[in-house]
Amino acid sequence: MSQTQIPILRIGQLLLAGLPNELDDLTTAQFGEELAERLVSDGARGVLLDISKLEIMDSYAARMLTEIAATARLLGARVVVAGMQPAVAITLVELGLQLPGVGTAMSTEHALDLLTNDRSTTGGEAGHRVHPG
Amino acid sequence: MSQTQIPILRIGQLLLAGLPNELDDLTTAQFGEELAERLVSDGARGVLLDISKLEIMDSYAARMLTEIAATARLLGARVVVAGMQPAVAITLVELGLQLPGVGTAMSTEHALDLLTNDRSTTGGEAGHRVHPG
Repeated sequence: MSQTQIPILRIGQLLLAGLPNELDDLTTAQFGEELAERLVSDGARGVLLDISKLEIMDSYAARMLTEIAATARLLGARVVVAGMQPAVAITLVELGLQLPGVGTAMSTEHALDLLTNDRSTTGGEAGHRVHPG
Repeated sequence: MSQTQIPILRIGQLLLAGLPNELDDLTTAQFGEELAERLVSDGARGVLLDISKLEIMDSYAARMLTEIAATARLLGARVVVAGMQPAVAITLVELGLQLPGVGTAMSTEHALDLLTNDRSTTGGEAGHRVHPG
């Protein structure tokens, strides 16, 4: 079983996936690989990753997410993560970790707005942040 | 950890989730419960379940899916599953299993069409099928 267990949904030109509460190395690597293949085969322009279940984000997971976003960008798509738990955000800051190239949004809907209204900026700019309210 | 590991995404009035390749009893029960809670808290009208990863559908999983759809209907929403693998469909038929009340579609996009164009039929009718092409 070389495929990830994380389903990747396609809606229009976007791919959507929800990450589980913990990202082990194998799962994350397989997911990154399958996502890249799906970006090409589906001709997708954006990726929405729901991370509301994710409870632990260590430096490895942060790096994997960054690499997934960098790969997507090379393939002409951008990545937005949605629903980060406050504790995860705090941990990331405490660890001094950034998610360069990864857009962030409070909810899947904000992420969709970001991806659908801003497709022209697929290019090389750094992470995009939404501050609702 | 009483919550399911299956992330439930909200987009507009729809909830989306992708099921893993195997549905164990606990996961399915927890998912059903959380989905019902989310239907109410998010005021959702439809549920799209991507089952393209699902490789095994036994009578238990079929019954759970049917119950999830029945619960959703009582809460005013309908359920469409998308991306069933041909082998799963064949197995279901061989086992004499139906998925009453569960709409089926070839892809998430067909499922979305079904859910967004047909919300008025949230009521008691049996499963809806899309035959693309």
